[in-house]
Amino acid sequence: MLHRTAIALAICLLLPPALADEGMWTFDNPPLSRLDKTYGFQPSAAWLAHLQQAAVNFGASSSFVSPDGLLLTNHHVALGCIDKLSSPARDLAHNGYVAHQRYEELRCPGSMARVLRSSEDVTQQVVEASKTASGGDAVTAMRKRAIARLEADCKQQTGLACEVVPLYKGSLYHLYRYKEWDDVRLVFAPEYQAAFFGGDADNFVYPRHALDFALLRVYENGQPVRPVHYLKLAKRPVAEGDLVFVAGHPGATDRLLTQAQLATLRDITLPIKLASLKRQQAELHAYSQRSPEAARQALDRLFGTENGLKSGLGQEAALLDPKTTAQKEADEQQFRTAYHQQGLAGDPWAEAEAASKREASRAKELWALGYGYRTLFEYAGQLVEQAYERQLPESERLNAYRSAGLPEIERRLRAKVPFYKDLQVAVQAGYFAEAEQLLGKGHSFVRTVLMDATPQEAAEKAIRNSKLDDVNERIRLLQGGVAAIEASDDPLLQLARKVYPLRRELVRYQETQIETPSKQAAEQLGQARFALYGRELPPDATATLRLSYGKVAGYQAGGISTPWKTTFGGLYARADSFDGKPPFDLAPKVAAARSKVVPSTPLNFVTTADIIGGNSGSPVVNRDGEWVGLIFDSNLESLGNRFAYSDTTARSSAVDARAILHALERIYGAPELARELRGGK
Amino acid sequence: MLHRTAIALAICLLLPPALADEGMWTFDNPPLSRLDKTYGFQPSAAWLAHLQQAAVNFGASSSFVSPDGLLLTNHHVALGCIDKLSSPARDLAHNGYVAHQRYEELRCPGSMARVLRSSEDVTQQVVEASKTASGGDAVTAMRKRAIARLEADCKQQTGLACEVVPLYKGSLYHLYRYKEWDDVRLVFAPEYQAAFFGGDADNFVYPRHALDFALLRVYENGQPVRPVHYLKLAKRPVAEGDLVFVAGHPGATDRLLTQAQLATLRDITLPIKLASLKRQQAELHAYSQRSPEAARQALDRLFGTENGLKSGLGQEAALLDPKTTAQKEADEQQFRTAYHQQGLAGDPWAEAEAASKREASRAKELWALGYGYRTLFEYAGQLVEQAYERQLPESERLNAYRSAGLPEIERRLRAKVPFYKDLQVAVQAGYFAEAEQLLGKGHSFVRTVLMDATPQEAAEKAIRNSKLDDVNERIRLLQGGVAAIEASDDPLLQLARKVYPLRRELVRYQETQIETPSKQAAEQLGQARFALYGRELPPDATATLRLSYGKVAGYQAGGISTPWKTTFGGLYARADSFDGKPPFDLAPKVAAARSKVVPSTPLNFVTTADIIGGNSGSPVVNRDGEWVGLIFDSNLESLGNRFAYSDTTARSSAVDARAILHALERIYGAPELARELRGGK
Repeated sequence: MLHRTAIALAICLLLPPALADEGMWTFDNPPLSRLDKTYGFQPSAAWLAHLQQAAVNFGASSSFVSPDGLLLTNHHVALGCIDKLSSPARDLAHNGYVAHQRYEELRCPGSMARVLRSSEDVTQQVVEASKTASGGDAVTAMRKRAIARLEADCKQQTGLACEVVPLYKGSLYHLYRYKEWDDVRLVFAPEYQAAFFGGDADNFVYPRHALDFALLRVYENGQPVRPVHYLKLAKRPVAEGDLVFVAGHPGATDRLLTQAQLATLRDITLPIKLASLKRQQAELHAYSQRSPEAARQALDRLFGTENGLKSGLGQEAALLDPKTTAQKEADEQQFRTAYHQQGLAGDPWAEAEAASKREASRAKELWALGYGYRTLFEYAGQLVEQAYERQLPESERLNAYRSAGLPEIERRLRAKVPFYKDLQVAVQAGYFAEAEQLLGKGHSFVRTVLMDATPQEAAEKAIRNSKLDDVNERIRLLQGGVAAIEASDDPLLQLARKVYPLRRELVRYQETQIETPSKQAAEQLGQARFALYGRELPPDATATLRLSYGKVAGYQAGGISTPWKTTFGGLYARADSFDGKPPFDLAPKVAAARSKVVPSTPLNFVTTADIIGGNSGSPVVNRDGEWVGLIFDSNLESLGNRFAYSDTTARSSAVDARAILHALERIYGAPELARELRGGK
Repeated sequence: MLHRTAIALAICLLLPPALADEGMWTFDNPPLSRLDKTYGFQPSAAWLAHLQQAAVNFGASSSFVSPDGLLLTNHHVALGCIDKLSSPARDLAHNGYVAHQRYEELRCPGSMARVLRSSEDVTQQVVEASKTASGGDAVTAMRKRAIARLEADCKQQTGLACEVVPLYKGSLYHLYRYKEWDDVRLVFAPEYQAAFFGGDADNFVYPRHALDFALLRVYENGQPVRPVHYLKLAKRPVAEGDLVFVAGHPGATDRLLTQAQLATLRDITLPIKLASLKRQQAELHAYSQRSPEAARQALDRLFGTENGLKSGLGQEAALLDPKTTAQKEADEQQFRTAYHQQGLAGDPWAEAEAASKREASRAKELWALGYGYRTLFEYAGQLVEQAYERQLPESERLNAYRSAGLPEIERRLRAKVPFYKDLQVAVQAGYFAEAEQLLGKGHSFVRTVLMDATPQEAAEKAIRNSKLDDVNERIRLLQGGVAAIEASDDPLLQLARKVYPLRRELVRYQETQIETPSKQAAEQLGQARFALYGRELPPDATATLRLSYGKVAGYQAGGISTPWKTTFGGLYARADSFDGKPPFDLAPKVAAARSKVVPSTPLNFVTTADIIGGNSGSPVVNRDGEWVGLIFDSNLESLGNRFAYSDTTARSSAVDARAILHALERIYGAPELARELRGGK
C-alpha cells in the first residue's frame, strides 16, 4: 500500500473530472458532495441506513417491500427457485404462480436471503497482520489468516454472517456483517413470456416491454419476518428527469483499465471477436437454410452467437463513444500527472501497456487457438489437456487444470449432450477457415490442423469418424488417463494431441505475460488511485452492496429518439407489429387481460444510474427513499459500463412500480398482493 | 455512344451479380426474368399498362384510386395545395379538411396532374440528328433541336404533353406522352400532426407512425375525371413477406459512382461533414442553454443541423454496409473486366478516380470555404460574388451566377429574415474555429478571416457592426453593383471582398477539375454499361415514371429487431412514452378518437423496394395490381440508396391501406370516402 498522509492536502486539486452519475458506491461512503452539487440532494444517515437494510441479497439483488417480509426481485432472479418448484405437471415458470394465501407460499429449496447490517473498516488489522511478512505470497497468506480470524470472531460475537471485503483493489478491507435467512418462499411469478417478452431478441435492448418481477417472502421460525426496514411504495410515481437511487449487488467492473488496454480491446481483440461472430452467424444462417431440422439443430447456437454479437457491438459502441473516450483520456492524463508529481514509484501504465501489446501481438492466435467454438474439437482438447496436465505438479499446470477447476471440466465432459455431425462439420470447417485466414497458411497451427487439406475436408475427416460425441467414450478416455489418450485412434483426439504443445505454449504465455502483469498493474493503479484521490472516487464493483444514482432520461441514438418509458400499450403494439410471432407472442394471461389493461400505464423506464450484472432485482428509489421501480436489465450501449461509465446513451432498465401493481390487479388477479405493496392490509 | 452489336452475344456471361430487389425500372422494360426467378411472378402487359396509367405525377407521385378520379398521395405532397388553400382563419394544414360533398372539394391553385400514356424509343432520331456534328457542343445543340422538334410534333399529333427523356446517361432517348389535368381539388387531409407525428425527430426513422396521406380529385371540364385505369383496394391486406410493387417518380440516383468515388465520399467528404455537424450541434445546444429566448432562436437551425446529421449518419451506415460494399466491388470488378475485354476505349474509372482524388486533396477547403453555415457571412459573400460575376461574360462566370441562377440568389438576398446577432456570432466563431482546425493557422483563408485574432474575436468584429441583417441595406448593395460593394465599409462585406479571390479559385477548381470530369466519366460509364449489359440493368432515376419492387420485411439493425409494420396502438404508445410532449403529441382528433380506434390496426409498414425522393405518394400494389399501401418515407439506412441499393436494413416506408380506411372511418368521420376507396357508391 502506498503512503498517503503526505499528499492529503493536494487531493482537492487533483480530483479527476467528475463523471456525471458514475459510481457504485459503498453505503458508508456515498457521494454526498456530488449529489448535493448535481441534484441539490442531501441524504441523511437515517435515509442511507434505511435503504441499506431494506436492500436484500438474494443471489442477485432484491428488497423488502412490506412489513411482512415481502421481497421484490426480478422473475429472472427468482427463476432458479421457480424452476426447482416446477414439474412437468405444474410448470410455474411457463404459467406463473399466485399464492393468494400464506399457506400457498412455496419454500424455495436451497435459497438464502441476507441483509448487510453493518460494516467496519478493518484495513489496519489486516495490513498489520502481514507487516512482518516478506514477499508477496507470504503477505497474501498472512492476510488470509487475519481475515479468517476477523470473520470468525465477528460471527461468534454477533451471531451474524461475517465477510471481509477488499475494496479499491486491496487498498481497504471492510468487515461486512449480514443477517441471513434460509426460508424464502415464492409468492408470485408472472408467466415466463410476460417476464421475458421479446426473448433473446429484446434482451439488453431498449425500448423494452418486460414484466420482469417476482414476489417472495422471507420467513423466520416459520413466520413471515418483520423487517425493521422495508421500502414503501412511492406516493408520487416516477417521472422524466427524476433523481433516483439503485441499491444492489453489482458483480464486477474493470474501470481501471488504461487507455492502452481499452485501445487494444477496441481496436484489436473486439474486432477479431466481432468479425468471427458475424462470420459464424452467417454460417449458421446458411446451415439453417438446409432444412427445418437443420434450423432446429442450429437454433441454440445461433441464439448464443447473436447475443454474443449484440453484446460485442454494444461494447464497441460504448468504447467508441467520443464523450466517454474524452473523459477517460482526461482522467488518465490527470491521474498520471498526479502520480508522477507525488513521486509514486513504478509505472503501472507502462506495465499495463506492455502486457496489452503482448496481447495484441498474439491476439489472432489467442482467438484462433482458443476453444470458443463449442465443437467436439473443444471436448477433444480438454480430454487431452486434462490428462497431461494432471501429471504435473499443481503449480506447473495451466490455470484451468488446477484442482479447483477440474471438477467443472469433468462435469462438462461427462454430460450427455446431443451432437449433430453435420452441424459440427460446418462449424469446425468455418473455424479452420477462420484460423487459416487469421494466421496464414504457414502458421504451425494451421499446418497441423489442415495438413494440406481444405478446411472443409479437414473438418470432415476429423469429425465424421470421431466417437467423441458418445458420452461413454468420453468417460472411458477421461478415466483412462494419458495411456487411454495416447492409445486412441480417434481422429479428433489425435488432432488435439498434435495441437496440445502449441496450445500449451500459448496459454502459458497468456497466463504469465498478459494476465498476471495486467492484474498486478491493476492492483498498483487501484492502490495509487486510492492513495491520491481516496474515497472521492468509487471503487470497482465486488458483488457487495452498493448505491448507484442517476436521473430518469430517454436518449438519442443513431438518429432515433428513444423515450424514457414504455407502456402496456407499447407491449401490445410490439406483439401486434410482429403478428404475435415468438419471441413477440403475448403470454396467455397478458393477452386475455388486454381489455382490462389501461394502455397508457407505464411498463419499463430507463435511468443513467451506473449498474452492471448482479444489480438485477435492485429497487429503484426516489428522494424520499420510496420505491418507484425495479432494475432488470440495461441497454446495449451500457455493456461498455464494465470498462467506462457513460450517460450519453447507456441506460439501466427498470420495471415501473405502476406496472407491477397493474399486472397484479388487472392481469394476474392478485389484488391482495397489490394491497400489501400499497401498505394496506 | 459505344458500339454494341458486336458484343451482344457476350451479355449473358457478363451480367453483374443481381442485386436482390434493386432497380427503378421503366415500364417498357420491367425486370421480368428477375421477378420470375426471385418471386415466380410474371406480370402481363395488361398488368403493367394498368399500373402505369393509374400512376399519376402530381409534383411527386400519386395514383387514381376510384372510378371518379380520386387521387391518393401523401399529406406532405399535397401540403403545397393545402397551404395555399389555408388562411389564418381556416388553417387546413393544422386542422385537416374533409369534403363530404363534391361542392366542398377545393381547387388547388396552380396544380397539375399527369399520366404517362405511352412512350416510344426515339434514340435513333435524336442520334441521327447529330450525326453530322463535330465536337461535343455541336452534338448537344443539334440533339436539343431534334428533341424540341420531336416534342412539338408529338404534341401536335396527339394533343398530349410530350417530353423526350434521356436514359442510361444518354444511351437512350425515349419520347414520353402525358395526359395532363390542371383542375385538381382537395378532398381530404388529416391534421398535420397526424400526418407528421414525431416531426423531424421521426423523419426518415422507422418504426414510424404517420398518417401521411391525403385525397384529391382530378376534374376535367368541371366534372370528376373517369380514369380508364385506377387502382382497386386490395381484397387481401398486405402481409409480411409479400411481393409488392411501387409505381412512382424517383428523382435522381448516382448508382454509377465508382469504388474510388464512394471511398472518397465515405472516408473523406462525409466524415468532414459529420464532424462539422456534430460540432455545430454541440455549439447550438450550448447556445440554447443560455436562455429560453436563445433556445427559441436556435431551434430552426438546430433542427436543420440534426436532420443533416441524421441523414449523413444514415449515408455513412449504408456506405459501410459490408454486404452492399462487397456487391458493389464485385460488380465493378466484373464491369471493368468486361469493359477491357471488349476493347472499349478510354478508362472512365481512372478519370473518376483522378477527379475524386482532386476532390479529396481539397476536401477540407471545399468544406471550410463553402457557405454551408447559413450565416450573414454567406449573404455578404453572395452580395460580393454576384456583383463581380455579373461583370463577366456568361461563359466565364462561376456556374451559380449564370443568368439562370441569379433570380434565386436575388430572391434570397431580398427576403426579409430575422437575424439574431448573438447566434450569428456564435455560429460564425464556430465556423472560423473549424476552418482554423481543418486548414491550419497558415492557410491564406484562415489568415484572411482571423487576422491574428481568435475565432471568437474575429466573429464579433465582423458580425456586430455589420448592417447586412437589414434587408434594405442588402437591397441597396444588390442594386448598387460593384461600385456600392467597393464603397461599403461594412466589416462583413469587406471580409467577403478579401475572401472572394480565394473562393473564386476554389469554386472554379471544383467546377472544372471535379464536377465536369466526374460528369463526363459518369456518362462514359453509363453508356459503356449500357453497351455491355443493355437493359438488363436499371437506369439511374430521372424523375420520370418507374417501377420498383420488393418484399415486405422487417430487419435487424444494431441488435434491435424491427418489425415489418407498426400499429395505431404503437402510435398511442409512442405518444404516451414521451408523455405527449411535442413532436410526440397526438393530433386533437386522433387523441379524441382513441376509444374508437382498434389498436391492432396496421399503420405503417416497410419494404425492400428501391425508392428515393420523388417516390413520395407512390402507390404500393400487390401481385393483383391492387393497392395495399402508400409510400411516404424511407428509413435512415436507405439514405445510401442514392449511391448503392441495399436490402440489409434499408427500407422504404408506407402507410398501410387499412390505416387510411380506419382513419377516414374512425377518426375523421369520412365514411363516404372510405366507401369510395372500397369501390362502393
